[in-house]
Parts: sequence; C-alpha cells; structure tokens
Amino acid sequence: MNKEFHQLENNIAGEGFLPGLAVDTVIFGFHDNQLKVLLLAYKNTGLYALPGGFIHDNEDVNEAARRVLQSRTALTNIYLEQFYVFGNYSRYDPGPLKAIMQARGYNPPADHWLLKRFISVGYYALVDFTRAIPTPDEISDSCDWYSLNELPALMQDHQQIINKALETLQNELDQKLIGFNLMTEEFTMGDLQSLYETILNKKLIRAAFQRKMLGLGILERVAKKWTGGAHKAPYLYKFVSNRLPADNS
Amino acid sequence: MNKEFHQLENNIAGEGFLPGLAVDTVIFGFHDNQLKVLLLAYKNTGLYALPGGFIHDNEDVNEAARRVLQSRTALTNIYLEQFYVFGNYSRYDPGPLKAIMQARGYNPPADHWLLKRFISVGYYALVDFTRAIPTPDEISDSCDWYSLNELPALMQDHQQIINKALETLQNELDQKLIGFNLMTEEFTMGDLQSLYETILNKKLIRAAFQRKMLGLGILERVAKKWTGGAHKAPYLYKFVSNRLPADNS
Repeated sequence: MNKEFHQLENNIAGEGFLPGLAVDTVIFGFHDNQLKVLLLAYKNTGLYALPGGFIHDNEDVNEAARRVLQSRTALTNIYLEQFYVFGNYSRYDPGPLKAIMQARGYNPPADHWLLKRFISVGYYALVDFTRAIPTPDEISDSCDWYSLNELPALMQDHQQIINKALETLQNELDQKLIGFNLMTEEFTMGDLQSLYETILNKKLIRAAFQRKMLGLGILERVAKKWTGGAHKAPYLYKFVSNRLPADNS
Repeated sequence: MNKEFHQLENNIAGEGFLPGLAVDTVIFGFHDNQLKVLLLAYKNTGLYALPGGFIHDNEDVNEAARRVLQSRTALTNIYLEQFYVFGNYSRYDPGPLKAIMQARGYNPPADHWLLKRFISVGYYALVDFTRAIPTPDEISDSCDWYSLNELPALMQDHQQIINKALETLQNELDQKLIGFNLMTEEFTMGDLQSLYETILNKKLIRAAFQRKMLGLGILERVAKKWTGGAHKAPYLYKFVSNRLPADNS
C-alpha cells in the first residue's frame, strides 16, 4: 500500500483511476452488546478516517470497495453493501488529502487530482469484531475498533457518513441479517434480541420482538436434544437455508 | 434542453461537469392497479432510455437528479430517492451516446468526454401517473409512461437499472409510503392493499395485510361520519402526521 499511495501521489493527473470518485467503507463491529466502527489514523497528521480509496478505470466500483478495504485493513471476505452516494458540493475539502501527502514529505501541486472534488460511494458491513482483526497499511499509524459513542474527530464528512450508515443498518437489519453472517449457527431469541437492542440502541419488548422475528419467515426452530435439564433451556433457532441472499455485486 | 445538449456535445473535454458521473431516474407511475415507468425515445435513433443526465461541477448530486428530471420531462416536485450506483465496468458502452450525437449531425471525436466510461447514480420515485404528465425535451421524440410488462428494448443497462429499482421499491415500500405522497388524504385498507398488490405483483391475504399495516404505526383511523348507510362503508385511514419523513437530500 505504501507503494500504491506513492503511485497515487506521483500520478498528478490521476491516470488509470476514475476521476473524482472514491469509495468509503463503514465497518461496524458487534460483539457482546457492543457496537464499534473501524477507523484509520494517518501518520503524523492527527487525522482519523474511514478506510477508503479510489477506483481503477477498468474496475467495478463494488470490486474496488472490496480491494480498498482489504489493502487498507487486511480484512477479507466482508459482505459489503452500498448504502449512499455522498455527493454534496459542500463536502469538497482538499485540506486533509494535502496534509496526508505533506506528512509524507510530498508537496502536491494545486491541480493534483487528489485535491479535486470527489464524490464518495459509501459501503457498510456488520461483522463480529472479535473475529476481524484489522492491520494498518503503511500510511496509517493504526487501524482499530472505536466505540460509536467515543469516536475521535473525523476528517471531511466521515462522521456524517457513519451516521447515515448506522441509520441504514438500523432500517435494513431485518433484510440484511442473514447476509452479514454474524450469528453462530444456532442461537437463542435472546441472542438475536441483544443484537437488535445494541444496534437500535434501545430496549425491546421480548414478546413483540419474538412475534416480529418469527413473522419475517427467516428463522427455523432447531429440534431440542434430550440433555436431562434441557426442559429449562431456551429454544435454539437457525436461519432457514433457502433464504440466503443473492450476491449483491 | 436543446441548448443544453448542444453545450454538452460541443464541450469535448466536459468542462464544467463532473467527469464520468451521471444520474439516471426511474420514475414509477401507479394508478388504478397499473404500474408504469417513464421512458424517453431519442429522435432518429430508435433508442429508448431512462431520463438521465450529468452533474455540474459545483452542484450537489441529488440536486442534479432533480434538475435533470425536470429539464428532460418537465416534471417537478418529485420525491427522488437514491437507490444504487451502477458502476460495473461491463456497463461501459459509448455506442448509444455516439448514435444520439450523430443523429443530430454531430460526429464526436473518439476521446469526447461523453464517450468515456460513466458511473451512474440511480434514483427512483413513485407517483400517480394520471397527475404527472411528462413533456419531452428537444432531443427526445417522446416521453411517455410504459407498462412494466411491455417495455421496449432499452439502451445500455437501463433495463437492469429498472429491475433493481423495482426490487428496491418492493423492499422499501413500507418505509417510503408516506414520502411518495401517493394516496389521497383518506383511503381505505383496500386502496392500500391494491397498491401493494400491484407493486409486489401478487395477491395478498386481507387479514394479514391489515395486521401488518396497522403494526407499522403509520396509519390513523379516521372517525366515521354519520351518513345513514355508513355502517356498511369500510373504515377510512390517513397517515399519522408526525411521521412525515425528513428531506433526504
């Protein structure tokens, strides 16, 4: 990636990349009633940012999002969903990119392609943060999970991108639940309710939650095994196997 | 718009516009159990297309979508929702744009900006097609409503854009219902069920539909007026007034 960024910053016209278009990824991590988000810290700048990057001129945009996430965090096999295009003129702010290049000892000309207006396609995912251990690339000091209520100040409009991604996740959780592949194979209704309560950031009524989830038609009750005291154990569920979502790319 | 297109095609480098980025709008029309979509036919080309266009370099992308829809169809005040970015490399197909320019007597050079690869941000809306009378712009022969099951062959990947928009509309109808402002102020559960059945293209069970809709918490039952025979009339509903969605721009 050091090499890749070197190539980006020495490519003043941005040849080989789509002009003015970027991808940014909001990776939410859930575990044990905690919700976090993945951030990079740029070396010698004090700048925190979402993992993002640019699109090769012969590359699918969805493919670029996967490649960028992998090259910047070393995370693979993450089910990314497009959620919004950030295209307001007011988000145009070349300062941070200039600061990142200057921190590397490179002083870009004013018409450098990285200093032009960019539109960003936002992607999000939800993973178990104990199973996703990120590694920073060579232009980042760190790549870590941060609690949503303890985020550092973020560059450009990245805080708004996170807010919009969270809103989308909250609205789409019913539909995306299986795709995110977050639950163990068998789980209790209580496990699922904990996930919802953490993401929606509110308590839910148990009976109403169970009724709603069963009404979605995506859960199958697992037959109980006889284990002596099992009559007191909660029912286990799994996702019905014919409801796996199609690849959305 | 004739003037505007003249400006586009004589602007070989695309100055004043964002490079490589377009907007396309899928306007669904509903009325009386019919679902249609709005298409343009380009003069002297045989090409049918969604209303689309380009983004000024100091313009918000969402604002460009509204402007493009208005300039190409004369429709205003339509609540457009972003739904997907069409960014696969395989969609790159400069042929139709070249044909449209040639049909106007202009032979573009091979490196003309309109012949380069474009990424398109898709927007959709749902309107009452009897209240939305489109007018073609000067480069289009017609701008008309077409039944979804009788669409002509469409240019580039516009058929796939429509398919993806329909899928999104079907998935998001519960959430977007109020924003689309499609129902009369007061309506019966049967009116609402007809809308759902048409968009989902399947029959629904009346009791289950009513239970689901009441469960969404967006409907309020209107007090019945005494009108003699009113005991046989169905209940009327309206949307609860504190659930108007925020502007999404």
